[in-house]
Amino acid sequence: MEELRTLVLYDVVNDKPRLKISEACLDFGLTRIQYSAFAGRLTRNKRQELFLRLRSLLEGESGKIFIQPVCGRDADEMLLWETDTAGEGEANEVG
Amino acid sequence: MEELRTLVLYDVVNDKPRLKISEACLDFGLTRIQYSAFAGRLTRNKRQELFLRLRSLLEGESGKIFIQPVCGRDADEMLLWETDTAGEGEANEVG
Repeated sequence: MEELRTLVLYDVVNDKPRLKISEACLDFGLTRIQYSAFAGRLTRNKRQELFLRLRSLLEGESGKIFIQPVCGRDADEMLLWETDTAGEGEANEVG
Repeated sequence: MEELRTLVLYDVVNDKPRLKISEACLDFGLTRIQYSAFAGRLTRNKRQELFLRLRSLLEGESGKIFIQPVCGRDADEMLLWETDTAGEGEANEVG
């Protein structure tokens, strides 16, 4: 089954469920790209499975989960810029 | 020119440039979907223009900007879950 680059974003109020969500993303082989964002390649089934896992971790908690697959053509249009602490910029890769 | 749903994510250390980046996203007609994430429809030219604007706002600052267009087919595969403060979940729409 085709794996697509998948973005996972979340806003979670409390630290404990937020940490569990980040650990679940790592379990699924994703890479942290921002403080509350992960990326990596997942099949449609794995995306669904991750979504259900994250939903269950949010039970009784306040927050938001957003999972977005990105096809290869769109991934090529990605724009990325990162600066170090001195504010020097460079373009980097996303997993 | 074709407009695609575009996701804008950022991690910015200092409050002032982070606020300016969120204001620039609003200027471009995007909607806040998470604390440091916006979404909305942009042409390729507008995405490039926004990227340059955000890069200039990061000059001398420490942070990361990520802009990802999403085609209609991928947008249909988006998974979204939001819970209120009581932890009751529901699926919502993204701009």
